[in-house]
Amino acid sequence: VSELRLRALQGLPEIPPGDDLGARLAALVPAGPGVLVIAQKIVSKAEGRLVSLADVVPSERALELAAQLGKEPRHTELVLREAKRLVRTAPGVLITETRHGLICANSGVDLSNAPGDDIAVLLPLDPDASAERIRQSLGPGRAVIISDTFGRPWREGLVDVAIGVAGIGALKSYIGDTDRAGRELQVTVMARADQIAAAAGLLMEKEAGTPAVWVEGIAIEGKGALRDLLRDPARDLFR
Amino acid sequence: VSELRLRALQGLPEIPPGDDLGARLAALVPAGPGVLVIAQKIVSKAEGRLVSLADVVPSERALELAAQLGKEPRHTELVLREAKRLVRTAPGVLITETRHGLICANSGVDLSNAPGDDIAVLLPLDPDASAERIRQSLGPGRAVIISDTFGRPWREGLVDVAIGVAGIGALKSYIGDTDRAGRELQVTVMARADQIAAAAGLLMEKEAGTPAVWVEGIAIEGKGALRDLLRDPARDLFR
Repeated sequence: VSELRLRALQGLPEIPPGDDLGARLAALVPAGPGVLVIAQKIVSKAEGRLVSLADVVPSERALELAAQLGKEPRHTELVLREAKRLVRTAPGVLITETRHGLICANSGVDLSNAPGDDIAVLLPLDPDASAERIRQSLGPGRAVIISDTFGRPWREGLVDVAIGVAGIGALKSYIGDTDRAGRELQVTVMARADQIAAAAGLLMEKEAGTPAVWVEGIAIEGKGALRDLLRDPARDLFR
Repeated sequence: VSELRLRALQGLPEIPPGDDLGARLAALVPAGPGVLVIAQKIVSKAEGRLVSLADVVPSERALELAAQLGKEPRHTELVLREAKRLVRTAPGVLITETRHGLICANSGVDLSNAPGDDIAVLLPLDPDASAERIRQSLGPGRAVIISDTFGRPWREGLVDVAIGVAGIGALKSYIGDTDRAGRELQVTVMARADQIAAAAGLLMEKEAGTPAVWVEGIAIEGKGALRDLLRDPARDLFR
């Protein structure tokens, strides 16, 4: 690959629950091969992953945790419902592992940019399946990545990462030099789906209304799945 | 911004120490505004940040650590010399904080792709200054990001991040919705320099000989510095 082109797809309206997002996106995507990167929030809205905070009764545990961290109790309740476990807490900060195995702030439960007041947007139940459904609407030669905006340890600022992948390998391996100890060939494994999500994020400026980005110039190969991007807990030094 | 274009710059030869990398890159970069992303290794080679392993005598501490982790002792010695502290160790894994404040594997000391056998490539001493020198060769309206390929907690695969920035803000803030608790406007801060580095990384395939990528479509604004991307240790939950 020697050239990449990324275009923000214009013309996506506010997405109502139950919307056929795949058909809508298929009408916007240019001809030819490419990767469609879609912001998670749009997918979640189409899938009706919305909860009115007015309907949420915080548990004792949510009330305690919210008071301890200075968070909104009903939001905290939803975060706990979406979480497999807490990873780190601090004043104003609640980092969890979601049922998908994603480690992120607030289990990915978002209160900003919600379609109405006091509406929480939850992550898709199965983001790979969501990506695959949209991919099928786009036809062959196209891949789909659902992205979300995550913070990171050690570094300031957010970057977009892939939370659902269809039609493209999430990882890409390159054979490198021989290890200097002479023992083995070094293999470099790049998180290609995350690189693509981060690139598309440059065009998904908040409030700019461009939650879908079309990426041309990347080989559409492999199958891809979120689990490929998640480190085996046994091999993770920062859990 | 609604469109981005990234091009791998072809024609960069093997870079000898002392090379005027800025002049060389200025001759390859297209006309008009843009961001030049350069792989750290090329910058380090031009700056002579090379050490022959034959000249390295491992300290007692390096010998012990190398034996404990199953690492090469002279490599381990260089990693320790470049490190402010150890962050995590495990068999085959040595994660450190560099003198720049970067947290990464092996203090960024790389043995692969070195210009000769048994040569280690160290990170630039001051990557922002390196980026600024190159930026000055390119003239106004251009920005420079020096990138390196880092692993991450929790997620598999490497992504490129910015380790030096000149001529563009490393972070970009977007004003979002009002916090649902009604207290404050939410501000989303994106790690723009890292997004750009990750995007360019898609064109820097290992061994492909394309360590320089030209990115068009991003507003060239702000100054930028690595320190903007480094989280204050007091606010970091994963040190």
